Amino acid sequence: MTFFPPLRIGILGGGQLGRMMALAAARLGLFVHVYCPEADSPAFDVVPQQTIAAYEDEAALAAFAATVDVVTYEFENVPARTAAFLAARVPVRPGTLALSVAQDRLVEKQFLNGLGIATAPFRAVDDLADLTAGLADLGYPALLKTRRFGYDGKGQVKIASGDAAAAAFAAMAGQPAILEGFVPFACEVSVLVARGLDGAVAVYDLTENVHRDQILRVSSVPALVKPSTALAARDLAAKVAVALDYVGVLAIELFVVERDGEEWLIANEIAPRVHNSGHWTEAGCLVSQFEMHIRAVAGLPLGASDRHSDVVMENLIGDDVARVPGLLMEPTAQLHLYGKREVRPGRKMGHVNWLKS
Amino acid sequence: MTFFPPLRIGILGGGQLGRMMALAAARLGLFVHVYCPEADSPAFDVVPQQTIAAYEDEAALAAFAATVDVVTYEFENVPARTAAFLAARVPVRPGTLALSVAQDRLVEKQFLNGLGIATAPFRAVDDLADLTAGLADLGYPALLKTRRFGYDGKGQVKIASGDAAAAAFAAMAGQPAILEGFVPFACEVSVLVARGLDGAVAVYDLTENVHRDQILRVSSVPALVKPSTALAARDLAAKVAVALDYVGVLAIELFVVERDGEEWLIANEIAPRVHNSGHWTEAGCLVSQFEMHIRAVAGLPLGASDRHSDVVMENLIGDDVARVPGLLMEPTAQLHLYGKREVRPGRKMGHVNWLKS
Repeated sequence: MTFFPPLRIGILGGGQLGRMMALAAARLGLFVHVYCPEADSPAFDVVPQQTIAAYEDEAALAAFAATVDVVTYEFENVPARTAAFLAARVPVRPGTLALSVAQDRLVEKQFLNGLGIATAPFRAVDDLADLTAGLADLGYPALLKTRRFGYDGKGQVKIASGDAAAAAFAAMAGQPAILEGFVPFACEVSVLVARGLDGAVAVYDLTENVHRDQILRVSSVPALVKPSTALAARDLAAKVAVALDYVGVLAIELFVVERDGEEWLIANEIAPRVHNSGHWTEAGCLVSQFEMHIRAVAGLPLGASDRHSDVVMENLIGDDVARVPGLLMEPTAQLHLYGKREVRPGRKMGHVNWLKS
Repeated sequence: MTFFPPLRIGILGGGQLGRMMALAAARLGLFVHVYCPEADSPAFDVVPQQTIAAYEDEAALAAFAATVDVVTYEFENVPARTAAFLAARVPVRPGTLALSVAQDRLVEKQFLNGLGIATAPFRAVDDLADLTAGLADLGYPALLKTRRFGYDGKGQVKIASGDAAAAAFAAMAGQPAILEGFVPFACEVSVLVARGLDGAVAVYDLTENVHRDQILRVSSVPALVKPSTALAARDLAAKVAVALDYVGVLAIELFVVERDGEEWLIANEIAPRVHNSGHWTEAGCLVSQFEMHIRAVAGLPLGASDRHSDVVMENLIGDDVARVPGLLMEPTAQLHLYGKREVRPGRKMGHVNWLKS
């Protein structure tokens, strides 16, 4: 491994996740080039090179690839064609397998079940007849989701009774969908796993999450689950990372279901990237999820995922930024703002890590 | 206090201190413009706006001032004229008083003594007769230093006997100098104090420092001194910050002298800026010295200076970067590299924070 001249990292996507990855790369002295279609992307402000171009612009992609040693991404909806075009020129990490699995809810659930990992019961829904049959199997309530391009609750509808089925199907607007049975969970958790180019695996402590309006609000670590559950989540995450031949940080959102005094894990979603529920690692660990991801994709050794403190991470969404003056005076709060100029309802503006011990 | 649109910070100087201040400002979502004469300055790579121009270029300075709400600096040798030119256009923090005191070793010692703070005994040296008389007063060994523009041991000569006086004087090359009596110290410590625009003061825990070849190698916190000594250093630092009507982070390097079982503090040097001996705050505190400085100069509330962990900071100087591959695998090491392309002997390339508890 040579460290000088510095490795050059390309990042697809210029939102807050790209920005925080870029800041972590800067701390390691690495060069970063951010590629994003939106001119006012937060990540552009902290890197030496920027490209504003569409993900379909092959000339721009080729020029981008020529300036970097490896490409990574901050979002799972990178077009398959974009990833393939870049991968022909420069390593793209995590790889295209992770993208193809994470981009389709049906493929994702089949992949997880194939590894022996439980998911909610599901049915593919291509037409209204599929939906009707699915609802008869899975009961109510159930969730109808587009198979692709959903995040933060976008592209999904809850179906409480048979009367609502036709409207829910119409809301899919002809896109392939998946019907998921309702999981009566006790709590939601997530596990972040990193895998290096050399196959080494590091797992962060299990995080307990609270969503509101389908957007993550609070993540607490450690999660208040049985030690055996935390261990099971760790094993499950490592299994997924190995099966995907993954390089980088991966998040798996899980439901914890209680039955007969036991806890069971149900996998909900894979995010092949750094994840909002891992922001606590900035305050609780020596090596944050962002640095861990950068190390992995750059082919450097993984860092330690050990946690030195308990942390509660709180997202600042939309008008929550009005609390910033008060938060700056809180002695146990570490504040992180993303430099977004415009406040919009539901927009992630920053987060606070509350140190608990 | 308004937080949107974000405050705009101008930084004079583009070395690693400017870079780390810029990274801290980015975490608070602030805009940063770095001004530095050297084209390949490390801080340029992490900010949205850069100016490459001489500190005497008034057109460039005026344009720089027009883009920011406040100007700060990473080094104490900002030319007085540059500071005055900018201060006529935009607040410059810390102010020109701190610069004038810190830029001249004679003025600095007189200022400290005026506050009742002990320093090494000293004599102004403008000619060889001053030096001869000074050596007769202060004895051997003694240190002859240029009054201005010294750092990391540059511009100073140790005089072990009268025979060496003439050569030492010649080494000053006609610059005004100061002769300092030798202080037989038990250890070296430094104290970092922050003062806000509102007059609030926060002091970080006392740090123990080891220099080699007059360059800082290791800083450990907490310093192994008596609790009363740590308290005295804290009081001394607050007194200096108030007397300078200071805004920002200030470092004071101190000698600890043992006499009759007691510890005494002798002030050595004031640095009106973030300081190498404060790099441990990145791993040991929620709010690093860099964020603390940015908060202060931006007129935001100071953060908490509480320390959650013991830390040993080690500088990576010159060829020390060859250790980077191994350091990346150390589970208690937080690595920070400055993105400097060229390795030179004595050049500060990065640092490691070792978490000790």
